[in-house]
Amino acid sequence: MYDIIILGGGAAGLAAAAYAQNKQLDVLVIAEQIGGKAGTRQHLPNQPGDEELLGADMVQLLARRGAAHAAQLHDRVLGVSKLNGTFEVETQRHGVQRAQAVLVATGAAPLPLDVPGAQPLVNHGIGYSITTHAQLLAGRTAAVIGTTRRALRGAIELAKLDTQVYLIAPDAASMSSPLGQMLRHTPQVTVFEGYQINEIAGGANVEHIVIERDGEQSRLRVDAVFADLGLLPNSGVVRPIAQVDADGFLVVDEHCMTTLPGLFAAGDVTTAFAENILVAIGAGTRAAISAHEYVLARTPTYAMEPAD
Amino acid sequence: MYDIIILGGGAAGLAAAAYAQNKQLDVLVIAEQIGGKAGTRQHLPNQPGDEELLGADMVQLLARRGAAHAAQLHDRVLGVSKLNGTFEVETQRHGVQRAQAVLVATGAAPLPLDVPGAQPLVNHGIGYSITTHAQLLAGRTAAVIGTTRRALRGAIELAKLDTQVYLIAPDAASMSSPLGQMLRHTPQVTVFEGYQINEIAGGANVEHIVIERDGEQSRLRVDAVFADLGLLPNSGVVRPIAQVDADGFLVVDEHCMTTLPGLFAAGDVTTAFAENILVAIGAGTRAAISAHEYVLARTPTYAMEPAD
Repeated sequence: MYDIIILGGGAAGLAAAAYAQNKQLDVLVIAEQIGGKAGTRQHLPNQPGDEELLGADMVQLLARRGAAHAAQLHDRVLGVSKLNGTFEVETQRHGVQRAQAVLVATGAAPLPLDVPGAQPLVNHGIGYSITTHAQLLAGRTAAVIGTTRRALRGAIELAKLDTQVYLIAPDAASMSSPLGQMLRHTPQVTVFEGYQINEIAGGANVEHIVIERDGEQSRLRVDAVFADLGLLPNSGVVRPIAQVDADGFLVVDEHCMTTLPGLFAAGDVTTAFAENILVAIGAGTRAAISAHEYVLARTPTYAMEPAD
Repeated sequence: MYDIIILGGGAAGLAAAAYAQNKQLDVLVIAEQIGGKAGTRQHLPNQPGDEELLGADMVQLLARRGAAHAAQLHDRVLGVSKLNGTFEVETQRHGVQRAQAVLVATGAAPLPLDVPGAQPLVNHGIGYSITTHAQLLAGRTAAVIGTTRRALRGAIELAKLDTQVYLIAPDAASMSSPLGQMLRHTPQVTVFEGYQINEIAGGANVEHIVIERDGEQSRLRVDAVFADLGLLPNSGVVRPIAQVDADGFLVVDEHCMTTLPGLFAAGDVTTAFAENILVAIGAGTRAAISAHEYVLARTPTYAMEPAD
């Protein structure tokens, strides 16, 4: 039996693994892939070099350091349960793995932009997180699709960088919020109310988008398209045993513990998600500290062993 | 006027500076020294190399990267006030500096061990944070002074690493807690109830301690002495304007904002302190994200400027 099983190999999971490894705990990382979203860079024409993502090198450092020495299974988790104080993690190809505590760091996936032409241009001008990539668009032109709070906040961030912003707002009503009102009066921002996006086109990179209202189409030249449509937390396997909010994010307390004792969570899968590598590293570490405390407090048995 | 002034140059402050710099904010870091406690290593005899502190290299990376490009003042802050929505930070040698938001990351200092012989042996066997240095003591002998929750939890962590622990508990009553009871029954731990520590002695490193009860002295050979007596938050300059808890730690919400709008805080100076470099980096980044949002929402004025 392991002390801790960590689900997920992104920034939060790797940080947790490094901490647990450093504390000489028996730790197992189960992830379909190591690295998570942390290395996802945008590629735009005339870009001076690779996009610099604050913290991406730290994820690599964590992966090489502590986390590399932890046991790893590249597998899919089918279910998690707790029986008589022991967690059982059922995997697709490696049977059932057991541990005293489980740390969920499975992240969240952006809702994809389902528009003709979009798929091959993802990361070549199409992005799902404005705040991650905004700097690249300073002084350029970007379309923002949708009116979630993240999208509107992102549009303001872009405008502040003197990006020319086309805000495509299919639902005009959502522009009546204070953020929406602010954007309506921001000269760098043009709001296309009631428009749908029909197509994204380009060669190696995004070149233009086609939008439509009342059967009339417009074509806009852009350097990038951001679709902050929302995030889907990868919380499915633990939803039967721990509380999630209305959007499926795991509810955690200030110690990163879910509503089930011994089940911890960190990063974008939680209600405390932050869409930032360094925040995820901090949260993963904090969750590992709590899991460590939980394991220490739960093993008075070692006190009964001979000291030898 | 700056967008953000960051007080403190430790892990949390440097992470905040790197984020703010990455977001092209006008940021000023005011700190008496850069690096904080993050680089404080223990030096014990027969140590295979420098103590590896998870995250210490990341602080250096942050300092070199983003934070290095931020304006810095190596100065002492005398006071912080907020007038008509603008913060004024009074420094000892550089007058008054102004910003829209202030981020406090001034950390906390351990209560020093005031015992003859102690001062020259700090970091040569005397440490103030068990959890930071526990690994070094695996299989060795350590004295833990005091019975704070941190001290007792640390003693358990050491015992789990098969460290021989001498727990010096001047106040015997404090051992009646569940943690205390657990330690009493842990074979790797010897509890010295009602004892005081009189002296720490050694050459290049700690070699032994002298303890006393009822006028009778004992001498114990140890490799290290940990004094987790408590932490004193460096919150003095903002206590007149923001709420602190009974121990002086700044109260922050989940966005790292204090009770005064525009005044953010992160790291060991806050109630969310964690005594861990990576957690501090995450908290500093989260506080900077919140401060950035605050600044963006507060500057609709740029919308009135000509787009030119």
